[in-house]
Amino acid sequence: MGQPTIHKKHNFDEGEPLAPWREKIHEVIFEADTGWGKAFDVFLIISIFASVIAVMLDSVASISAEYRLPLWIAEWTFTVLFTIEYILRLICVRKPMLYARSFYGIVDLLSVLPTYLALFLVDAKYFLVIRILRVLRVFRIFKLASYIGEASMMMKALRNSHAKISVFLYTVVLLVVIFGSLIYVIEGAENGFTSIPTSIYWAIVTLTTVGYGDISPQSPLGQFLASCIMIMGYGLIAVPTGIYSAEITRQAIKEHKEKEITNNACPSCSYEGHDADAVHCKKCGAEL
Amino acid sequence: MGQPTIHKKHNFDEGEPLAPWREKIHEVIFEADTGWGKAFDVFLIISIFASVIAVMLDSVASISAEYRLPLWIAEWTFTVLFTIEYILRLICVRKPMLYARSFYGIVDLLSVLPTYLALFLVDAKYFLVIRILRVLRVFRIFKLASYIGEASMMMKALRNSHAKISVFLYTVVLLVVIFGSLIYVIEGAENGFTSIPTSIYWAIVTLTTVGYGDISPQSPLGQFLASCIMIMGYGLIAVPTGIYSAEITRQAIKEHKEKEITNNACPSCSYEGHDADAVHCKKCGAEL
Amino acid sequence: MGQPTIHKKHNFDEGEPLAPWREKIHEVIFEADTGWGKAFDVFLIISIFASVIAVMLDSVASISAEYRLPLWIAEWTFTVLFTIEYILRLICVRKPMLYARSFYGIVDLLSVLPTYLALFLVDAKYFLVIRILRVLRVFRIFKLASYIGEASMMMKALRNSHAKISVFLYTVVLLVVIFGSLIYVIEGAENGFTSIPTSIYWAIVTLTTVGYGDISPQSPLGQFLASCIMIMGYGLIAVPTGIYSAEITRQAIKEHKEKEITNNACPSCSYEGHDADAVHCKKCGAEL
Amino acid sequence: MGQPTIHKKHNFDEGEPLAPWREKIHEVIFEADTGWGKAFDVFLIISIFASVIAVMLDSVASISAEYRLPLWIAEWTFTVLFTIEYILRLICVRKPMLYARSFYGIVDLLSVLPTYLALFLVDAKYFLVIRILRVLRVFRIFKLASYIGEASMMMKALRNSHAKISVFLYTVVLLVVIFGSLIYVIEGAENGFTSIPTSIYWAIVTLTTVGYGDISPQSPLGQFLASCIMIMGYGLIAVPTGIYSAEITRQAIKEHKEKEITNNACPSCSYEGHDADAVHCKKCGAEL
Repeated sequence: MGQPTIHKKHNFDEGEPLAPWREKIHEVIFEADTGWGKAFDVFLIISIFASVIAVMLDSVASISAEYRLPLWIAEWTFTVLFTIEYILRLICVRKPMLYARSFYGIVDLLSVLPTYLALFLVDAKYFLVIRILRVLRVFRIFKLASYIGEASMMMKALRNSHAKISVFLYTVVLLVVIFGSLIYVIEGAENGFTSIPTSIYWAIVTLTTVGYGDISPQSPLGQFLASCIMIMGYGLIAVPTGIYSAEITRQAIKEHKEKEITNNACPSCSYEGHDADAVHCKKCGAEL
Repeated sequence: MGQPTIHKKHNFDEGEPLAPWREKIHEVIFEADTGWGKAFDVFLIISIFASVIAVMLDSVASISAEYRLPLWIAEWTFTVLFTIEYILRLICVRKPMLYARSFYGIVDLLSVLPTYLALFLVDAKYFLVIRILRVLRVFRIFKLASYIGEASMMMKALRNSHAKISVFLYTVVLLVVIFGSLIYVIEGAENGFTSIPTSIYWAIVTLTTVGYGDISPQSPLGQFLASCIMIMGYGLIAVPTGIYSAEITRQAIKEHKEKEITNNACPSCSYEGHDADAVHCKKCGAEL
Repeated sequence: MGQPTIHKKHNFDEGEPLAPWREKIHEVIFEADTGWGKAFDVFLIISIFASVIAVMLDSVASISAEYRLPLWIAEWTFTVLFTIEYILRLICVRKPMLYARSFYGIVDLLSVLPTYLALFLVDAKYFLVIRILRVLRVFRIFKLASYIGEASMMMKALRNSHAKISVFLYTVVLLVVIFGSLIYVIEGAENGFTSIPTSIYWAIVTLTTVGYGDISPQSPLGQFLASCIMIMGYGLIAVPTGIYSAEITRQAIKEHKEKEITNNACPSCSYEGHDADAVHCKKCGAEL
Repeated sequence: MGQPTIHKKHNFDEGEPLAPWREKIHEVIFEADTGWGKAFDVFLIISIFASVIAVMLDSVASISAEYRLPLWIAEWTFTVLFTIEYILRLICVRKPMLYARSFYGIVDLLSVLPTYLALFLVDAKYFLVIRILRVLRVFRIFKLASYIGEASMMMKALRNSHAKISVFLYTVVLLVVIFGSLIYVIEGAENGFTSIPTSIYWAIVTLTTVGYGDISPQSPLGQFLASCIMIMGYGLIAVPTGIYSAEITRQAIKEHKEKEITNNACPSCSYEGHDADAVHCKKCGAEL
């Protein structure tokens, strides 16, 4: 989500200017300030959603049977369009390889490949839904600055909690491996716990409070162990929540403080900690 | 929840006074200060609950069969009563259109329409449960000020977190679309994942830790992917919780600070909002 | 949980002293300072757990069939013992009615009644598990002061959030009534949604992310509505958590501040907000 | 997770030096600074994961049938290796008993015992998955100091919330016992609630929002009670989360404050811990 800035950088790299026609294409495709640029972006977003919906409908047996041709046409139309767009993007940027290896470059490529692959491997076409990631551009295009700000703040909080979350995930993995093996020994294959991997799957289903019920313990001891896992999972959820809440609160307070309090000391009494809008020292009355 | 104030405003608009009989009706229907006003409100609330329960009972096959007539009478009685009430409300307010387009005006209309619609479309009558929204008036009627205060504070926290919540929801949608398509390719129709929309539905069921178990992965790879989605969902719940907790804490701190800031204005420049420990005005430097 | 103090109060009421033998019984039964008192309490707790386990085992068909007589004897032994204890408690307190109407008095009575009722109504005996509430005394008996402190702090946070939680619960009720009726109209009896009350039950199962899967939507529209309810429930959980977190944080900060900062102003410069351990004013250096 | 320090302590105990060959083994096995030490640790971690995966695969019927011999060889190879390692660890530490009773000592022993036990008791071998706990060493070996720091901070928050969490767990146990018995009386054996223990299991499944659906209430009253339990469980999750969030926030603030407090000692009385804005020592009044 913080990626919009990544490939923007290389567009404004120092260097020889682009040929005028490449610059024109660049303006239309990469920017949203001009009329054509905006029109292109709106058309792009509609195409993306339409193509994702077409892929979804294609997977519904009854619809696929009845509308085979129109769906086939839609798929190839969108793919050809996106392929042309991808090539244009490669042409009009100064450093094509940098774009090709950026987050959006990869997503743009993955958005057309499956159709071609599907000529050989029929299931591949469903990966076209990856096109939905292209919509992330919408945040940049419509200058939804506040959304980008919030998103990057949320990502920052996640990154800051990174070590804590790793410890938490590792603990969860340890717990499900041990509990999964225990329940396998207790319940055994005759109650659906056919192997340790399956039992670990069940332990994850239980600890995360999902609870499909496709496998469930039958013996009293198994049900007792399951109860322990459930209560543990019910309580453990407090850990990531606590970590993230504390981190967000900490960040909000930090930002708040930075905004509110100036670091200027009073020139006559040296008192610090004045509000940002203070003109006179609140202790001695001297002008700041 | 913050709406009680909305249509109150237009009742006290400046303008020519209402005719005495309209004013009388207004007093009884819209206000709860007089004896008649209170009696009307209590009767209204009882009617609302009774009519909602009647709709619910009507949907139970065995009860509906046995008590067809009394339920039919109840439904029409309540509908006629509420229709009269709606018309009276329109009559006695100064600007009927404003009321008709307000939150309560729409709810009041939707509370009677289904019965009339049901003459043509039999299922429509079940929408009468929308009447339950009328009970929201109870907060206003019984002057449950603290509840309204809390509710509007909670709504304010939600509104402030609006951008963050949008980003979160968008991330959830992206995740379930991609994971749903992946599981569709992995498991396929023979294991119940009949189409991408169905698989996305399954991904939502799994990510939100609901876990019906009507569809569940059978292959090892599918179970592995499901495990990842579950753990992700289990951890992701920290995000809205963290956002909302931080926002509520922030708001509580803000309110607390506002109390701490003295209300004294500077005697020389009238600037307000000084810290409690300020000796001099932070704007003009005069002693406080 | 905060009740231990309730009936303690009336034991030490002013008034004529108890007869020595009643005082002796009072000491043994109500207090845990003397050797006999402690022995009684330990014996009581063991009896309570043993009797609850006996009731549970009695409900297991295979065990009940094999050990009918010993379980019958156990049940009556415990009941007679607890009845005698209840009578002794009534005798040895100064104001028996106050005890009888206190939280523990009612629990003590409800702990013996079911056995007598079971002579007429066979299922009544299972209510004997209410005896487990008697174990709450354990907190008082073993002077687990810190636990009582924490519990009452947690209850206080709950009470303070009372209005907010009511608003939240009311919102949940509104949502499940409306969504339940919607899904009833969409899915209908043929997919398991046999009536509005059943559909509301399903909406609760879904919104709270429990997800039994005994009823689940089959039509695309129903699954779409279900998805909305799930995501709403997944996000809504942030509300009670945020409320409670903020309240606990607020309370902890308040306690922390009250401990740390004295309200004493410096006698020479009137500066306030000194630490509790400060001897000299941190601004002017005068002795406090 | 805080245990890495436990057995480290006794390695650096004062006393007579180890024989050079024991010191050499100690260096390789317990430390990760030298080349051999690091190589040993990496080899150990790979072995641990390989052996755990071998145990898991062995539990899958189809794999177990086809690769009986290689899995048998792998199991015994790893067990013999880990047994030799365990003996070497005992030999090269100064106080073997202290190591043997430490957390890692016990885990190391439990990581080899099941294979020998499996000679008599075939299911015992699955307990070999406990080997996964040995990987906890990875935190120490690769000097993942920040992870250890975070883990011990998280454990500290858990320990500080210990009393609150006990109260919460006790409340949960009381609730599920009482609700479980109630639903048993309401629904009875004919709807799957065959005994009170089974019903309590169901109540746990419901309160923790797991919701397998293997047992679910059929009568209207049972569904109503279930709805109450679900909403209660949905709200109750706020309690551990609130407790833990507040504790983490509190700890973070404390650490933050400790940083804000200057480390300057008073020049005249050497008192430390002054606020950052203090001008005079709060103990003796001397200027700072």
